[in-house]
Amino acid sequence: MPQPIPQAKVWSLDPRTGERRAEVAVESDTAAVDRAVTAAHQALPALADRLVRARLLLAAADALAKAGDELVNTADAETALGSARLTGELARTAGQLRAFATVAREGALLDVVIDHPATPGAGPVLRRWLTPIGVVGVFAASNFPLAFSVLGGDTASALAAGCPVVVKAHADHPATAELAARLLHAAAREVGVPAAVLGLVHGFAAGVDLVRHPALRAVGFTGSLRGGRALSDLAAARPRPIPFHGELGSLNPVVVTERAADERAAEIGTGLAGSVTLGAGQFCTKPGLVLVPAGPAGDRLAAATAAALAEVPAGVPLDGRIGAAYLAGCQARAALPGVASLTAVPDAEAPGRRLRPCCLELPAALLIEAEPEPDAGAGAGAGAATGAGAGNADHTLLLEECFGPLVVLARYRDAAEAAAVLARVEGSLTATLHTTPHEPEAAHWLPSLAAIAGRVLVGGWPTGVAVLPAMHHGGPYPASTSNSTSVGATAVERWLRPVVYQDAPPELLPPELHDANPLRVPRRVDGQLERPNA
Amino acid sequence: MPQPIPQAKVWSLDPRTGERRAEVAVESDTAAVDRAVTAAHQALPALADRLVRARLLLAAADALAKAGDELVNTADAETALGSARLTGELARTAGQLRAFATVAREGALLDVVIDHPATPGAGPVLRRWLTPIGVVGVFAASNFPLAFSVLGGDTASALAAGCPVVVKAHADHPATAELAARLLHAAAREVGVPAAVLGLVHGFAAGVDLVRHPALRAVGFTGSLRGGRALSDLAAARPRPIPFHGELGSLNPVVVTERAADERAAEIGTGLAGSVTLGAGQFCTKPGLVLVPAGPAGDRLAAATAAALAEVPAGVPLDGRIGAAYLAGCQARAALPGVASLTAVPDAEAPGRRLRPCCLELPAALLIEAEPEPDAGAGAGAGAATGAGAGNADHTLLLEECFGPLVVLARYRDAAEAAAVLARVEGSLTATLHTTPHEPEAAHWLPSLAAIAGRVLVGGWPTGVAVLPAMHHGGPYPASTSNSTSVGATAVERWLRPVVYQDAPPELLPPELHDANPLRVPRRVDGQLERPNA
Repeated sequence: MPQPIPQAKVWSLDPRTGERRAEVAVESDTAAVDRAVTAAHQALPALADRLVRARLLLAAADALAKAGDELVNTADAETALGSARLTGELARTAGQLRAFATVAREGALLDVVIDHPATPGAGPVLRRWLTPIGVVGVFAASNFPLAFSVLGGDTASALAAGCPVVVKAHADHPATAELAARLLHAAAREVGVPAAVLGLVHGFAAGVDLVRHPALRAVGFTGSLRGGRALSDLAAARPRPIPFHGELGSLNPVVVTERAADERAAEIGTGLAGSVTLGAGQFCTKPGLVLVPAGPAGDRLAAATAAALAEVPAGVPLDGRIGAAYLAGCQARAALPGVASLTAVPDAEAPGRRLRPCCLELPAALLIEAEPEPDAGAGAGAGAATGAGAGNADHTLLLEECFGPLVVLARYRDAAEAAAVLARVEGSLTATLHTTPHEPEAAHWLPSLAAIAGRVLVGGWPTGVAVLPAMHHGGPYPASTSNSTSVGATAVERWLRPVVYQDAPPELLPPELHDANPLRVPRRVDGQLERPNA
Repeated sequence: MPQPIPQAKVWSLDPRTGERRAEVAVESDTAAVDRAVTAAHQALPALADRLVRARLLLAAADALAKAGDELVNTADAETALGSARLTGELARTAGQLRAFATVAREGALLDVVIDHPATPGAGPVLRRWLTPIGVVGVFAASNFPLAFSVLGGDTASALAAGCPVVVKAHADHPATAELAARLLHAAAREVGVPAAVLGLVHGFAAGVDLVRHPALRAVGFTGSLRGGRALSDLAAARPRPIPFHGELGSLNPVVVTERAADERAAEIGTGLAGSVTLGAGQFCTKPGLVLVPAGPAGDRLAAATAAALAEVPAGVPLDGRIGAAYLAGCQARAALPGVASLTAVPDAEAPGRRLRPCCLELPAALLIEAEPEPDAGAGAGAGAATGAGAGNADHTLLLEECFGPLVVLARYRDAAEAAAVLARVEGSLTATLHTTPHEPEAAHWLPSLAAIAGRVLVGGWPTGVAVLPAMHHGGPYPASTSNSTSVGATAVERWLRPVVYQDAPPELLPPELHDANPLRVPRRVDGQLERPNA
């Protein structure tokens, strides 16, 4: 009889040293993934009651808060993100769980619409609501070991929607993942819900098995463009395709108007540096491209950015791969013709385990698509672009996300040039405008920014995603593979599917669909919004 | 210089004779598709104003009503659906356009959510709304030349959402398509909107080019599983994937309880026969599988169904391919072991241009998945299943849609057996329960039916989709490739994408997002539903 192949061990690593900390699990084989998904599927009825979901989410939030120190210490040991940042992330994660408890309890997520015929019997009575889609697969993100991982936003919104979850842990923080899962399982016991409402699997192959599992009904993913696209393609190629809500990468462009640069060069420059280096630049909302006016005001802004960046110490990458990719990304960009470095460019001397901030600059004209005619636009190169023709295809690299504390300043000569660059930027999570009050040109920018982003900021910086009902964290591809959000009250929509009942008598219907609305959920009845007197 | 290749002609055909009626267009080559999509993209700003969208939709509805006779006659000549049915479909199509004009005007589709911080300045102000996704591609359906074609539901909801549309005409009714497009273009002129808000292309290759076009942002499709899946895969494989809202096929199971059969055998049988043969069975909501109790009550129901079907004259298929597929589908199913024919089975003698109703019957046990052990369940065959083992894989064919007036009656011995069959049914647009008032078992059926369908009827028949705000016309795959609907007020969600503005001053914002809500759109502000006093 063949011996079972020993399963690969899952180690928690110290990113500061690269050393192994502890063995925390084994990689999940196909059978283990199947057990997790099957058990989660069987637990679906346990989440039918919205009040049970709310209690589970609140118990999880309490458990998280109670285990604060242990979680923060474990996460810091695995990610080097620091206890201050992780304490904040923990509070945010508990806050998300509580916010989704409110969403589950209130019932607006059901999106109930009821139509009666004008004359009874003259047509059908329709009662539509949203129902849980089924078991959801969630891929934990490297850069948010709490807020976008086992008990993060996707898990919270899926449970609020009534969907059990199987999480694929991230290799950068498996010990934090195991700890978080144990907290949720304790909360589940407390509330009387099967622990299987949250499964946890480890390993690359487990992620593939998860997406392919016949009982899986949707996926939430936060990660790289390459890995995310591969999984998204897998989800689409299933015999029964499932929605893949992936956040794959974002350039997060910023436009600074001439007047804003003139009035607030230093403030914008230091603010930008702070945003670029938050979490060592390992934020999906890090501003990666800033359109700065050519001329003296822009020069001051660029100088202020570079000076502020020089004062930020190098950060520790979440893992060696990220460190190496950052190094290569900075070097490839800095080597492009017409690109100047306002800071030292991280090089091979810089150890791979450090992320040193980097600021590059080039004339915006180099980022504008070349005309088909070989000569067109050749004379349009800005002064600083010595010898480089406009629209060199290589410069497209500067319009791609480089994960880590790198920012590219594109110096534009007029609004048309800035707009032409923006038109080449792919879908982003955010787009930011720095302007001055009552600047007439500003109004033109908002539609262009909204065309490429899911969140448009006027002033401020895109890093730091406020957990509020109206938040939208998503954007056109590749920022997101769907039109949904991973943050905010509407995130539950990812995990819901409409069903309409036609002419069903009340005794067969859930109370939310009874005419009397005994649970007082917000509804739309015969065209009128029915707002319960809460 | 190479001569341009002459483009293939598009002929309007008479399905009653197979003869060519008229040459109505040429197939659209890649350049023609590009022109249509590019022009539609450029027309996007013309639909920014919701009131303009509403005026356009109303003008289109008026134009449709005014051209009623010409449209009905043209559509009948191309589809043989008959003027009574088409007159009804025309009214429905105009009604849809008007309903979506209301949706556009009212503004609930914007799904506005606004959050202010508890203390001004203590956090960001977020203002979320939904924006048009961009140019939408719509594939006209063979079986609804008006309601699911050029001016059908997808076009109406896309225009209401502010999205220009390029329609791929169906080869079964190109003359109707051309006429409908001209009506919309006249309405556009009347309202002062570019005609390019609706483009029309012809031909198989044009459909592929349309889905692949870089400026396309979403697709709406109604058609076959094979063709739809291929296009869905194309949409997912694009460099920038786009959502594909496809309706690909549906079995529409019906469960009749023992008591319902006992009390209303004749009524249910004749109702079923009417639903199965509506539009010659060429409805996506045609009930294809009916779970009927074994025993005398079920026997009466089956007899009533067969008797009523025998009285319905053979219909004309929309095209020869549909006629041939129906013939083959009936024969393959009737030839399966254990399957009895309650009507004559259409055979080669039946001309390919006629759809003769067909009713097949078998023990439900044959549709239940076989246990992995070769012997398991072998003794469970119902009396009628002479010599056939339970769960023969070939019987899975009976769980697939057969387009045309075929219905399969599966005779179950107890509720568990019926439930086991239902568990094998793939996603459906509808699932129907026939029960009696206050029958206790009935409550158990609804969740099982809701698990596999987007619309659950208690009594009545699934054909005929009421155009009402609460309607949901979609369902789990393959009924739909997405969780959205193609009918009802929420259909606009297909074509919308959220954007949130953070800290944008009022002068940069659309009025719908101003605190004062001057346009009085329904919103959610700081957690409270804001219902304008309309």
